[in-house]
Amino acid sequence: MAAPLYVAVVGPGEATGEQVEIAEAVGRGLAQSDAIVVCGGLGGVMEAACRGARDAGGITVGLLPGADRTDANPHLTISIPTGMGELRNGLVVRSAEVVIVVGGGYGTLSEVALALKAGIRVIGLATWSFDAIESVDSASHAVQLAVRPHT
Amino acid sequence: MAAPLYVAVVGPGEATGEQVEIAEAVGRGLAQSDAIVVCGGLGGVMEAACRGARDAGGITVGLLPGADRTDANPHLTISIPTGMGELRNGLVVRSAEVVIVVGGGYGTLSEVALALKAGIRVIGLATWSFDAIESVDSASHAVQLAVRPHT
Amino acid sequence: MAAPLYVAVVGPGEATGEQVEIAEAVGRGLAQSDAIVVCGGLGGVMEAACRGARDAGGITVGLLPGADRTDANPHLTISIPTGMGELRNGLVVRSAEVVIVVGGGYGTLSEVALALKAGIRVIGLATWSFDAIESVDSASHAVQLAVRPHT
Amino acid sequence: MAAPLYVAVVGPGEATGEQVEIAEAVGRGLAQSDAIVVCGGLGGVMEAACRGARDAGGITVGLLPGADRTDANPHLTISIPTGMGELRNGLVVRSAEVVIVVGGGYGTLSEVALALKAGIRVIGLATWSFDAIESVDSASHAVQLAVRPHT
Repeated sequence: MAAPLYVAVVGPGEATGEQVEIAEAVGRGLAQSDAIVVCGGLGGVMEAACRGARDAGGITVGLLPGADRTDANPHLTISIPTGMGELRNGLVVRSAEVVIVVGGGYGTLSEVALALKAGIRVIGLATWSFDAIESVDSASHAVQLAVRPHT
Repeated sequence: MAAPLYVAVVGPGEATGEQVEIAEAVGRGLAQSDAIVVCGGLGGVMEAACRGARDAGGITVGLLPGADRTDANPHLTISIPTGMGELRNGLVVRSAEVVIVVGGGYGTLSEVALALKAGIRVIGLATWSFDAIESVDSASHAVQLAVRPHT
Repeated sequence: MAAPLYVAVVGPGEATGEQVEIAEAVGRGLAQSDAIVVCGGLGGVMEAACRGARDAGGITVGLLPGADRTDANPHLTISIPTGMGELRNGLVVRSAEVVIVVGGGYGTLSEVALALKAGIRVIGLATWSFDAIESVDSASHAVQLAVRPHT
Repeated sequence: MAAPLYVAVVGPGEATGEQVEIAEAVGRGLAQSDAIVVCGGLGGVMEAACRGARDAGGITVGLLPGADRTDANPHLTISIPTGMGELRNGLVVRSAEVVIVVGGGYGTLSEVALALKAGIRVIGLATWSFDAIESVDSASHAVQLAVRPHT
């Protein structure tokens, strides 16, 4: 059996309806491709991606900023309370082979920057535009790019 | 559905045959009780506990010291490369509601100490003896104590 | 005696001649205002800020990504080898009451984002332009803004 | 000028009168030998060591568990609010070339274990006895062992 692909889905903890819809579709598509969804474990984009992944029978991992599990969204297979606050953003990025970003505030931007610094691919949906980000305009395209080996 | 119980199994990365046997039985018993096994992700006691848990259909999580997945033992459902070296010992402990320790060197001792400091229960098999450690002499007893609410 | 002000100076480890000149002037100015310079401890902008601060009799602190001191620039009063890689960017930011950014790549961007996320003031010299960054065009202006209470 | 020696002084945040006296003498002796005192930044043994070092004109560094400086003892040249809780124990150890332990609870024990795991020398005063700890019975002897190259 091939090793699973870990994909981080990052975005704001308070998301718009459109971001929620996109993130849920991203999570669903990743699970259907047997990828593991890693995220910051909270609400908004993180929760939507996990809900989509779990609905499709996938595995989800949340690396929480707090030291206990009480803030975890209810769609996590595994929750890790890091107690490191925003330093856990770096752990989310390190755990992933690809990062999909949906929308975003400064916390999300820090994850994008850490990923680019580490040479990890970043695929963006309705978010910042850097040359190094692969911008797409649909969840299915994001998933397709994430799970296909980069050539 | 009740929230799963997270149990850390800690011990040396280079283990004796007896430690391996005990750790494997601990992992198996935890999985049979629907507990999630958390560990440092490497070999020895960690690997044996994961193998036992996976054989029984359980979920295993490894928080690796290195920044990539190459050191992970092959029995992890989820691997998290923390890149934090021995600082990840504290993450293993934080992720667990109970710690079972099998044998041990100084790395293991740091996990036991961090758990006791945080008020997390520690169950010991053939390891140090502190007043605060619940010492047992069989894997099945350790599992029984771990999964039963402390009264 | 009043508590000292901690100011992080962040920027690329490989800097242009102009960035080095600016960072050195920033470090000098901060030391003359009795502020403590915090940085990532390496070369380029970090080293230049420290050299300027030390030349003016100031205190400099470097939070290194590696686990030993061998990568430290020679102008640190205190070096802390964190062994956390880029996760130490979050520690640099947390240690500071104000961040001055000179130029920048993705590592620097992660520090700016983490600071803005944490509500820490960011003063920028020849760097990205966000609404939340106070952009200035001289080292002396950056120092003046950093050491003067924000009103 | 030779590179300074970093010595961690670890021990309980609530210390006995005797521990305070010993830690203060250790801090003073280290400062007189031009060593930098690193500690967890809080009270008890940590504060006493810093007070002794500062009284003798030395430099002290506190790596705090919390995310702000409010818990810092008043005798720190440099305070670093890590926001990592007990995970900062590993940073204290990493920052030091030698560890002197005065008394101790479980938090202190984790630091001793992490130091021994990392191959860092541990000198103990009225604390646990492991083969790997160099046990001494006076502050001056501890300082003497710490600052003299191990042969």
